[in-house]
Amino acid sequence: MRELHFLEIIKNTLSNSSFIGDDCAYLDDLDIYVTHDTLVENVHFSLYTTSPYLLGRKAVSVNLSDLAAALAIPKYITVSLSMPKLTKDSFVSELYRGINDVCKEYNVKVIGGDITGSEKIVISVCAIGKKNSMFSASRSYAKKGDVVLVTGEFGTSAAGFHALSSFLYADNDIINAHLNPVPRINEASKLSNIIDSNIAVMDCSDGLADALYKVSLASNHSIKIDFNKVPVNPNVKQYCTVNNLDYKKLALWGGEDFELLICVNEEIYSKLDENIFKCIGIVQNKDNNPSVVIDDNGNGEKITKKIFEENSFNHF
Amino acid sequence: MRELHFLEIIKNTLSNSSFIGDDCAYLDDLDIYVTHDTLVENVHFSLYTTSPYLLGRKAVSVNLSDLAAALAIPKYITVSLSMPKLTKDSFVSELYRGINDVCKEYNVKVIGGDITGSEKIVISVCAIGKKNSMFSASRSYAKKGDVVLVTGEFGTSAAGFHALSSFLYADNDIINAHLNPVPRINEASKLSNIIDSNIAVMDCSDGLADALYKVSLASNHSIKIDFNKVPVNPNVKQYCTVNNLDYKKLALWGGEDFELLICVNEEIYSKLDENIFKCIGIVQNKDNNPSVVIDDNGNGEKITKKIFEENSFNHF
Repeated sequence: MRELHFLEIIKNTLSNSSFIGDDCAYLDDLDIYVTHDTLVENVHFSLYTTSPYLLGRKAVSVNLSDLAAALAIPKYITVSLSMPKLTKDSFVSELYRGINDVCKEYNVKVIGGDITGSEKIVISVCAIGKKNSMFSASRSYAKKGDVVLVTGEFGTSAAGFHALSSFLYADNDIINAHLNPVPRINEASKLSNIIDSNIAVMDCSDGLADALYKVSLASNHSIKIDFNKVPVNPNVKQYCTVNNLDYKKLALWGGEDFELLICVNEEIYSKLDENIFKCIGIVQNKDNNPSVVIDDNGNGEKITKKIFEENSFNHF
Repeated sequence: MRELHFLEIIKNTLSNSSFIGDDCAYLDDLDIYVTHDTLVENVHFSLYTTSPYLLGRKAVSVNLSDLAAALAIPKYITVSLSMPKLTKDSFVSELYRGINDVCKEYNVKVIGGDITGSEKIVISVCAIGKKNSMFSASRSYAKKGDVVLVTGEFGTSAAGFHALSSFLYADNDIINAHLNPVPRINEASKLSNIIDSNIAVMDCSDGLADALYKVSLASNHSIKIDFNKVPVNPNVKQYCTVNNLDYKKLALWGGEDFELLICVNEEIYSKLDENIFKCIGIVQNKDNNPSVVIDDNGNGEKITKKIFEENSFNHF
């Protein structure tokens, strides 16, 4: 995992690396949340399979997803766009129409950025949000007895990516899940209104199993989930059967689903809409060497560091 | 000018483009300044002529320069780094050592960002600052009778770029000006402590003449400067003589000097240190079709839109 390897080097180089950990930084003195994610051509997207409009939407949505995981209300974004100088006007206007549409949906303003040349298209977005609750969310707040909840479905984006990059047929909802993910801002807002303590939240942008493993490590608590409870779109199962793919692998490790993984106590869970927040497991004992076990009809698969490093979403 | 052309398209596409104008956005409700600038390999730098350490410094400094032009106190940055997966560990640690050193010098904290793969290196930095004065700075605040002040010297960075890219000898201070520019945070802070009204400030990252033209346009006031008062390093003049270059062109249009252009009234000027803030001209009449005239021993050159578009620093 080059990303984690480089992150270690960066942590060791910075005088103050206390902010490095969650996907969003909370700045106490300014009372704001900040996140910054970049999409790179031929790494995160291909111009052969997306449109400028959907690319603009996704560049914003992946950043809003990080704010959702911090239970923040998104307020502002900056956009730094790098592209070849021959790029068509319509590419730029369509890209910004996509950016503008997502911003309108979540009441976010574009406040600046820059435009530069580059060989490949790079879209870097920094998003700023405000606190929505007196309590906060971090991947390190899971506690014994918490139920593990998720929004949405898993593996859909990965199936969409597979179909697009293999030139195979897939239903529109599968393709859309990959090209036009929905940041769970509204779900995060509902959660913010109900919680009465700090809770563990993380988005599953690098895969559900990746998020489970990171939460268990950061919280020093083991987690057990029942794979049969993980929501998977029936069309994804069918797509996997037809194309000889393991849908379990897609659901656990596919990445880019931008769903929320949440750990809350039973009392909070009872106040949430079960159709939106689905229980897939439980937080177990405090453990300095915590584990994640994925139970599948009695067969438990344990996620070790090696399995995590081999399967987590690769940004390189 | 592809950059200005694309900026027009973006302004026309966004529902709310009121923030697009200055290099820094001020967010009234959060009381913060935000800026976001990106350096792209083979557009803004070459790995043949810089070092990872200096590249890290410059990526931060160019953003702090935008905060200086807003008279803001820099507080936080996020860094999004895209690079080939084969990039050496030492490149990453040296880059972040440079980032860390500039941050320490100006009491800035690195609060996050991301790391992704790409074919070429792209470093995108978002910087957040706080207000340092009850008054604000914008390129649109020049008033009749203001004196036009600058910090530092002009053309040095362009001479350094010329030397590096032509494999010619140049003094260290010329090379350093290009590879390791100083953001004028301390000078901006001095200015903040003295002003008693809003003032026009802009950094000259795209050239002195570019900044003069943009301030005159945004403020609807004509500006006249005396080229003989524009500070030019004697080594730059000598470098230009030896290499048959027009030092006037470098000083006016070279770009990347990251000096401040400031318009203040005579009274404020009298309270400033003349060794730091040098007067090069005056703001003239209000004019809906404003002009910038560069006087050089009685020969006045007028900067028209055409001249501006042909000469302004090209980010593509």
